Parts: sequence; C-alpha cells; structure tokens
Amino acid sequence: MKRGFASDNNAGVHPEILKAMASVNQGHMVGYGGDPVTEQAVNQFKKEFGDDIDVYFVFNGTGANVLSLSSLTHSFNSIICAETAHIQVDECGAPEKLTGCKLLPVKTVNGKIFPDEIKKYLHGFDFEHHAQPGIISISQVTELGTVYSVEEIRAITTLAHEYGLSVHMDGARIANAAVALDLPFKAFTKDAGIDVLSFGGTKNGMMMGEAVVFFDPEQARSTKYIRKQSMQLFSKMRFVGAQFLAYFENELWKKNASHANKMANLLETEIAKINGIKLTQKTGANGVFAILPKEIISKLQEQYFFYVWDEATSEVRWMTSFDTTEDDIYGFVEALKRLL
Amino acid sequence: MKRGFASDNNAGVHPEILKAMASVNQGHMVGYGGDPVTEQAVNQFKKEFGDDIDVYFVFNGTGANVLSLSSLTHSFNSIICAETAHIQVDECGAPEKLTGCKLLPVKTVNGKIFPDEIKKYLHGFDFEHHAQPGIISISQVTELGTVYSVEEIRAITTLAHEYGLSVHMDGARIANAAVALDLPFKAFTKDAGIDVLSFGGTKNGMMMGEAVVFFDPEQARSTKYIRKQSMQLFSKMRFVGAQFLAYFENELWKKNASHANKMANLLETEIAKINGIKLTQKTGANGVFAILPKEIISKLQEQYFFYVWDEATSEVRWMTSFDTTEDDIYGFVEALKRLL
Amino acid sequence: MKRGFASDNNAGVHPEILKAMASVNQGHMVGYGGDPVTEQAVNQFKKEFGDDIDVYFVFNGTGANVLSLSSLTHSFNSIICAETAHIQVDECGAPEKLTGCKLLPVKTVNGKIFPDEIKKYLHGFDFEHHAQPGIISISQVTELGTVYSVEEIRAITTLAHEYGLSVHMDGARIANAAVALDLPFKAFTKDAGIDVLSFGGTKNGMMMGEAVVFFDPEQARSTKYIRKQSMQLFSKMRFVGAQFLAYFENELWKKNASHANKMANLLETEIAKINGIKLTQKTGANGVFAILPKEIISKLQEQYFFYVWDEATSEVRWMTSFDTTEDDIYGFVEALKRLL
Amino acid sequence: MKRGFASDNNAGVHPEILKAMASVNQGHMVGYGGDPVTEQAVNQFKKEFGDDIDVYFVFNGTGANVLSLSSLTHSFNSIICAETAHIQVDECGAPEKLTGCKLLPVKTVNGKIFPDEIKKYLHGFDFEHHAQPGIISISQVTELGTVYSVEEIRAITTLAHEYGLSVHMDGARIANAAVALDLPFKAFTKDAGIDVLSFGGTKNGMMMGEAVVFFDPEQARSTKYIRKQSMQLFSKMRFVGAQFLAYFENELWKKNASHANKMANLLETEIAKINGIKLTQKTGANGVFAILPKEIISKLQEQYFFYVWDEATSEVRWMTSFDTTEDDIYGFVEALKRLL
Repeated sequence: MKRGFASDNNAGVHPEILKAMASVNQGHMVGYGGDPVTEQAVNQFKKEFGDDIDVYFVFNGTGANVLSLSSLTHSFNSIICAETAHIQVDECGAPEKLTGCKLLPVKTVNGKIFPDEIKKYLHGFDFEHHAQPGIISISQVTELGTVYSVEEIRAITTLAHEYGLSVHMDGARIANAAVALDLPFKAFTKDAGIDVLSFGGTKNGMMMGEAVVFFDPEQARSTKYIRKQSMQLFSKMRFVGAQFLAYFENELWKKNASHANKMANLLETEIAKINGIKLTQKTGANGVFAILPKEIISKLQEQYFFYVWDEATSEVRWMTSFDTTEDDIYGFVEALKRLL
Repeated sequence: MKRGFASDNNAGVHPEILKAMASVNQGHMVGYGGDPVTEQAVNQFKKEFGDDIDVYFVFNGTGANVLSLSSLTHSFNSIICAETAHIQVDECGAPEKLTGCKLLPVKTVNGKIFPDEIKKYLHGFDFEHHAQPGIISISQVTELGTVYSVEEIRAITTLAHEYGLSVHMDGARIANAAVALDLPFKAFTKDAGIDVLSFGGTKNGMMMGEAVVFFDPEQARSTKYIRKQSMQLFSKMRFVGAQFLAYFENELWKKNASHANKMANLLETEIAKINGIKLTQKTGANGVFAILPKEIISKLQEQYFFYVWDEATSEVRWMTSFDTTEDDIYGFVEALKRLL
Repeated sequence: MKRGFASDNNAGVHPEILKAMASVNQGHMVGYGGDPVTEQAVNQFKKEFGDDIDVYFVFNGTGANVLSLSSLTHSFNSIICAETAHIQVDECGAPEKLTGCKLLPVKTVNGKIFPDEIKKYLHGFDFEHHAQPGIISISQVTELGTVYSVEEIRAITTLAHEYGLSVHMDGARIANAAVALDLPFKAFTKDAGIDVLSFGGTKNGMMMGEAVVFFDPEQARSTKYIRKQSMQLFSKMRFVGAQFLAYFENELWKKNASHANKMANLLETEIAKINGIKLTQKTGANGVFAILPKEIISKLQEQYFFYVWDEATSEVRWMTSFDTTEDDIYGFVEALKRLL
Repeated sequence: MKRGFASDNNAGVHPEILKAMASVNQGHMVGYGGDPVTEQAVNQFKKEFGDDIDVYFVFNGTGANVLSLSSLTHSFNSIICAETAHIQVDECGAPEKLTGCKLLPVKTVNGKIFPDEIKKYLHGFDFEHHAQPGIISISQVTELGTVYSVEEIRAITTLAHEYGLSVHMDGARIANAAVALDLPFKAFTKDAGIDVLSFGGTKNGMMMGEAVVFFDPEQARSTKYIRKQSMQLFSKMRFVGAQFLAYFENELWKKNASHANKMANLLETEIAKINGIKLTQKTGANGVFAILPKEIISKLQEQYFFYVWDEATSEVRWMTSFDTTEDDIYGFVEALKRLL
C-alpha cells in the first residue's frame, strides 16, 4: 500500500487504542454514554481540565465543531473565523446548515487571526439587520500548520469577552499543538479563556470519536439534545470512551504527537536543503507547506499520497502522523530530488 | 456487569467484526471512503442488491435515516410514517431539523402502517398551503418487533409510486427481518419497490456504521454532499468497510440474527407459560412486548436492564441480541416468576 | 365579481383602514418600525393588554405563528397542536423549516384540544432521544369555527406551565372570538395564562400585517433578530401601524367581527331549516361547517366561492366576513335550496 | 416631520400607487394570487420580459432574494456575492438560515464584483468537503450606488454558466439602474444572461411587494411551495398586483427613478463644489457617498436623517427618492456648509 503525507488521518489506529477497544468488548453495557467506560473517560478529561467542565463525545471533527458552535449561538449570530478554517473550507457548509449562522472569513497569511482584523467584524451590535457577532472560532494547530501562542489566544479571548462573544477552539490537532508549545492542554485552552473546545484524537492515532469540552457547563445546558438531533450520538459509546482512556494512559497522545511533529521537523529540515523548493510556513507542528515546480507534483504523487494546497501557486501540504517513519521521510526526499 | 434485554445495542461487538477491523489496521489508506476496503464493502452490497445501486456508509441509524430522507425530499415535503417510527419518536427531531419536512405520524397498533391509513394523508397535491406528501417511511423490523410481509411492503410501494411518492425502509434490524421472512435482503427491499434503505448492522453485532442503499442511483446525485454536510462522513472509513465485509462473510449477519430471533422466540414461549403476563405483540424477530404487573417492573429492572415501553399500560420491551444466551433467558424468566 | 364564503380574506379592506393608511402617507419616516405611527400602534396594544408586553408586527399569519414559536423554542423541542391547526395543515411546513421543531398533532373533533389528550405527549422529558415538549399552540377561533372558553384555555395553560411548557395562541380570528365570548382580548389571553399571541387583523378587514404579542418581554429578547432573519420585517412599517390604529379606533375590530359572526349565525339558522343538510359544528364565530349532498357542491361553487373541508365526507366550510351582507346569505340559501 | 437621505424607503408611497390599491378594494376576490388583478400584474411583467418567464410576488426585498436563491440552490451550495451585498450585510443571516448555503463574500471597492475575483471561488467542484459553488448574486444598483454595464453583467453570467452556476440579480433599485443605463429592464437582465431577478418597487414609490422573476420557468418548479414555506405568500394579493399595475402604467417607475437619480446627481454636483468633502463613489443612480469631517456628522444628522456607511472612515451615504425635492437638496447643502 502506498504511503504518504496526504493527511494524518490516512494513518491507521495506534495498536494501544485498538487493544483498549477490544478490552471493553465484554458483556452488556447501557448504550449512548450511560456506561462506566464513558464515565471513566469523562473523568480523564476532568483530570486534564478540572472538574467544572462538561464533556460530550461525538463521531468526528465536523460534528465536534458544529456541536460546539450550535451550543453557543443563535441562528442570527455570525461566526468569525480564519478564511482557511476547517469550518469555512472543509465542512461543506455544515456549520451554516446546522446553526443557521453566517460565517465571516477573516483574511490570514499563516492560518492565524488577530484582534486587529477581528475587530473589523465587531460592529452592528443591537442592529437587527446585521447578523449579530456571536462567536470567534480559531484552530489550534491552524490549517497552515502554525501554532498560536498562549498570548495570542488570550488576546483573542479577551477581545471576544469584552464584546460579549464566546471563543471556540477547533483542536483537531490539539495534541500536536500541546507538544509544540510544551504545555498542558489546559494552559492554552481553559486558562487562556477558551469557552468551548473540539478536542480531536482521530488525526493522532484514534479510530474515531472527538470530544466537545465546555469550560462553563452552564453553556452546555442544551448540548445533549443538540448532539442527538445532530446525529452525533453513538450507541455503543464505550468504544469511544475506551479510545480516550488509552489515549491519555501513559500520555500516548504526547508520544504520538511528539513523533509526528518530529517527523515534520525532519522533513522541513531536509526540504530546506533542496534548491528550488520554497517552504511557505514556519509550522512547528506536523505539517509542512512548500511550493514545488508544477511539473513534478503529479509525478511525485504517483509515488506518495499528498494534496496540492493551492493550485494557483503550486503550494503543497505534507502531513506527518504518529506512524510516519524516518524511512518515509528520506525515501520521499530522495524521490523528490530525483524528480528535480 | 448486569446483562439484560434493554436494547440489542447494549451488546458488544461480535469477535469476527473486531478481528476484521484489526486486520485492516495496516499502513496508510486514503480517507473518507477512497480506500480499497470501502470499495470491497460496496461491492459486497452490490452482490446482495445488484450492480445498479449506490451505497453510502454513515455513522449511525439516525444518520442513515436522515441521509435517506434528505436525498429524496425537498423541505416542503411531508414524510409519512408510523406513529411509533424511530424517526418520529427516537431521533429528537433530527429529521425535521435536517430535512425541514413535516412528519405525519400514522396510527398503528403493531408498528405497521397500511395503504388505507396512508391514503388519508395523500391529498393536497399541488396546493401550496399543504406540505406536499413526498415519501413514506416504514421500519422493517418495526419498532414493535413485527415484520412486514413482502406483500404488505409491495402494497405500500405501489400506492406510493402511483401518487409520485418514494418509499424509505428503516432497516436498523433488517437482518432480523430477513431471518424472520427467510428471504434474501433484496426480495423485500429492492424487489418489493423500496427506493432507499437504511441498512443497519450496529444492532446485530457491528460496532458502528450503517449503509444507505439507493436502488436508483439517479436519486443519490446529491447524497455525497448531503452526507458531508450532515456530518456523517467518516475519515478512517476502512474501519466501517471492514465491519461490513466481516458481516457478510460466511453470513455472519444471518448467524447473529437467527440466534437473536431464536432467543426472542424462546423468551416469548417461556413468558407465554406464565399466568398474569400478557404478550402484546406477535413479533417474530428479536423483540418481545408484554404487560407486567406494575409493581414488579422496577424490581425486575434491578436485576436486568430493560425499558418500559408504555408507562400508561405497564407494557415493557425485551430485546434479544446476538450474544443473548439461553441462560440469560432462563435466568430472567426465573427472576420474573419469583417476583410474581 | 363573484362573492362567496371561501375565506374571510377574500373580502377587501375596510374603508376606514384604507383611509388610515392614506393618512400616514406624508413625508419621510424612519423605516422598519422606528416611526411614530408604529409607536402609537404599539401603545394601543399596551392599552389592550397592559404595559408589560412586547409587540412585533409582521406581514402575515404564518409569519406571526412562526415568529411566536421560534422565540419560545429550541430546535429540539416539540410543538403540540390540534391536528387541524393552521400551523399543522396550512403553512406548508413553515414551522418545521424555520424552528426545526417536531409538530405533534393532537386528535380533535371540534378543533379544540384538551388536557387529557395533551398529557399523552408530555413525557420523555430529559430523555435526549425524544424531542422535548416545548410549547402548546391553540387556535382561537379554532379552524373548525369553535371558540375556547376562558376555563378551557386556563386548563391548558395551567397544565403547560406545570410541565414547564409555554402556550401560544394563534389568534388569526381573535376578534371573532372576543365577540363570541363577549370579553376583552386580555381576559382570554394574558389573563388566562397565554405566553405569546398571534394577533390577526387581515381576516377582519385589514389589508395585511399581524402582531405578535409577548406577555413576558423577557421571552422576546431575540425576537427582533428572528423577525428580520425570518424575512418578516416591513420597511415602510407605518402602513401596518396605521392599520392597527384604525382597527382599534372606535372599536372597528368589534364592529367588523360582530357583523361577521352575526352573518354566520344567520347562515347557520337558515341552513338548519333545510332538510338534508347537516351542520357539523356548533361554531359561534364566523364559520359554518356542514355536510352537503356531494352532487350539488360543485354546482353551488359555480355561483359562490367556498371550499370543501373534507372530500371524504362532503363537509364544506362557509366563512363570513365584515362585508358579508344579508343579501349574500339569503341569496346563497336560495341557490342552495334550488339545487337540492 | 424631519426629512432626509437615510434611505429611499423612508419616503412614503406614490399617490398613484395608493390610488390603484384603493381602486381594487371592491368585492370579493380569491386570495393568495388567484385573483384577476394579480394575473394582470403578471402579464405586465411578461410584457417587459417576454412570455417565457415565471413571476412570484413576495412581501419584501429579503424575501425576494431568499426565494430566488432557495429556488436555485441546494443547501450544500455556496453563494458568491460582493462583501457589500445586501444578502451578506443587511439580512441578518436570512440567506444562510433559509437556504443552508455558505455565502462567499468577494472583495469589492465600488460594490461590483468581476470575473477575476469570482474565479478564485470557482474550485472544489465535485469535492464533497467543499460547499459547491452554486450561484453568483449581484446587486443592480449596487449597495455603493454604482451600476453594472451590460458588458460587465454578461461577463459574469458567461463565466457562471461556463462553470454550471446560475446568476441572481438583486434588483431592489432596478428602476434606478434602468434609468441610469437608459435601457429597458430586459436588456440588462434576461438578455444579459441573468437567471433570476429580485425586482423591487418599495424603494421607488411602492408600499410593499417585490417580484421574483425566473427567466427559465423550469427553475421555478418548486418556487410556489418555497414561497409559502418561507412565509412570503400574501393572502390579499390583489393589493400587491394593483401596485405593480400602477407602477408600470405610464411608466411611473421611470418617472420616479429618473427624478431620484436626478436629485442624486444634483446633490453630487453641489457637494463636489464644497471643499473638504470627498465623494467616494461615482454612482450614477440615486445614492451619493462621501467622507465628511467626523465632528459634523452628528450635528448634520440632527437636521436630516442619513446613515454613516463606514464609521472607520467617516463615510456617509445619502439616498434620494421619488419624493426628494430640490429644496431638500439645497437646504441640506446649506446646512452642511454652515457646519463646515
């Protein structure tokens, strides 16, 4: 089977995760999250984030984002996000369809958004003709592989709260961010003023299942109904719970993300040595972005999976994952050199 | 862990299913269904239903139902179903929210609906004040454990097509129906005039993942977009595909469903011998419905999981599953007798 | 032009209303309700209902109903109403599309619903699989021309509030009800426990424009945004305000509705004298329902507009309006007699 | 009453329009558009645009835009428009809520969008993660008072059709555009490749009521149901029809729009003579945009209604209407001069 750098979800499932899933396959358990495995998994989240949280497991990242946004908005709100955000670009309009809200895409060069740009959208309050600014959504790691510092996050949440908005973090790659920042999850989410978090695991060795974490349980009063009505309630929930237990056990999440980040770093280093290839982002996590000569892209894709990020500029994206090997990197770099 | 008869999804996953999932956990595969495992699984469906179908995997039963209905309706349509239908009673309004349609619940005594009752809702065509009848949805097995005959299904589909409506089958327990009818899936779906089918496996030994099967691929032209926008697209799709492959391999579905049906039959037989308990449905599949003396219900629930179906009449529902044992049945019946 | 009894909105506009509209056609006024005419109209409502209300003008009855329901529900709620309700039968699914809620149609013989039947739908609270009962909607006058007594309304609102639900009244024909009950509007709405009211005028001599009246302004916190997002905000609002001012001036509403009710009463009396025609409702307001010999219906329709209410039983509906004349009634009765 | 330049809908109703409304207030007519007045009004549109069109009357501009867009999109489509478009900025998210689509705001300096910028959004076709580009919406006159030439429109429609997209025109001020271009409506709509048109009259002397005109009736197959479900169906429709009849009679639309444009031109000319005020758009229709010294804005607003368009730059918008007088202009200019 061809390997590659198309996406961190092209990898399989970490063996420890699979083992944990098998281990809970015993006897009967109440469905839909009423089981003891789910309870333990929730408790694990409380160890990370404190007891005063509310956690909801869902199927996938889009589900986590939409559940987060639905819980904190009315349909007449707007959602402010980077023009590169997953919710803007990669979810086929699920946020609009499910929340009814308007998305306001903010210009970005590196996937991050900043208070100065955001402020331009913070007007028209109380004016009924204008979709009311309701929530800001940021991605950590961003879709361009960059990582917000705690200060950058706090600047956004401070601004948001000043204007009465909430802040959502799309943490599909939150483990890679934690490793890049060398900080516990709590430090750059709850402690930095984030209101609701999509906590992803699928891109870091889990099979499926994401968590939505509310840092103010009051804001999650309707969430269980929204989850069900959004078709994100898993019947045999223990198999999500078991994954999260294994994911936190012995910090598997950190092991996996550290490895992926390291491999991206290696790839970046090796690419930087090659003439004629321009690295376009200083990433730090598990993605590398570069501009290739157009004519070699498809030839390289014959040997390795990866996606063109921007057809116009011949920019490509290479994602590493928990199972990327040094051989993958060196083999790829060799193939690339041969084509140049 | 307490066992019981609460739902067929309180059981775990059949070992063969789990083994198949582990077996595809090798190397990299394109996400979102572009992988060879998914392709094989789709081909397996084509073996069952013929080549001229279109198949979409989703996460859960509600997702399968809503994707089916969304694909075949406009928001100004109505959806006609039994008042007991899962889409009417157990999905927290997901069909209304996602399709925008009106659900018209038809009176039923055994979970089935019939042309005479359905006809009462087939009016107001072309009259813009009236939600336009668009699709009829039936459940096979019904929520009351009964099974439609091929003739009963055909009567509905004939009526529907005559009036320009489509017919959806909620096959969350379709394997139990196939066993009860002793017919291949195709005989009471495609060949009986069904347009779109929610093909479930989770209640019969799978972990998660349902299939939506369109018998006229033309009607599925928008389905891939609707699936994504409905947040039902799985990234590591191979793990759903693998389950379906194992499910069809050596007719595991039939083994599981036969066993569950047999256990329900045994339970029914044993219950029938007890004075003071009234069986309320002649089911045939894997559910048994009975009226118990109110005062013993909660005591019995202390020993075995199960749900009260109708508080008003003290009717309870007992579901068997692929892992129900004869010991479960006899132990339960003994416990019940002790309480009487 | 053919006259008839098809609907009270087949009448034109009362001359006083038209005059009032012309009288405000002077100079410039701020749009969207910021004008002094609208303010006066709102104050008029406060005279009727007390100062502690919130009033929103909209275009039409469906708009008023949906704005009421949207303001008091979440998408995961259910809306309980008579199976004959306008929101269930005549709005092409607007309530489902706009609110996302499930409508639960309650059986009725005379258009009214009662606590005993409603109670059957008041279960599944806190159970996330079940659309959460959120609001009860009743029509006053009902779609079958009957009128709830204050006691009947209070029985419903008491039940609703006990369970944490709100109550909406669809008052498309509220003036006819007030006349039939010989009570001020307040007595059978706010004072009887109603939470939100669609106050209609179009069927009683206005051109267009209905009011949504909230008896707890707190519940209307989002209403101005919902109105705009629901496309129900009129730019030249003064022309709605002016209508309501004229409507309340000298109790025009009462004059119009009294006349319409009286004409319906006359029609009822005359019809009762004819052998072979069965009156099916004891109405009291401005509608008469009767079963005619099938063969004469279309012949009668050639001379007078009216609608068949139930094809199956040959039941027809005759509505009178503010401009129905005694000649209309006698002419119609004569035509009917000739056909028999 | 204070006069001003806040919006062309702060004017009242042209006397001819009001007279026409009164003239149809005779006897009974079938509701909801089945009346002869509505039929005549539709025929009038056919005279303007040809027989092969489909016309639907609605209440207001937002309703017209949303009905247009709903008829030609699926929820998984995106709608491409100027960042200044009414559908993007002034409808409180109605398009997202009602269509479920994503709006893609295109950068603009004068309210117009051009193929080069639009093309950047025409990608991701057939890729289910990406909201599928479905329709381009342009405003004529634009929200910045500018007017597209026929060639500019044709460039957009040609591009759109090449990619399989439709084109909608928001013609809230279409009469002002027709006058500015000195062309019949048809020349820059149907003949320029537009698929669906929101034809507005309220801003040019009507009371309320807009028309949605489909140039391919096939695309309007579902429109009557969508209109009703969107709460835009007027019961006493004759009063909209009558307005349009008067609007076309003796080219009242042209008289009104010519006057408004002329007044804007006069205002522009007079303003241009004043030092210290910068005109920001070369408009041509009935709007004038200028940057004022911040400190005088609120003082000027005490004497005349108008809106600040951009707080950041102190840009204001002045709209003229059919009832603007030369005295209004000169008085305003004098007041402005006094303040400088």
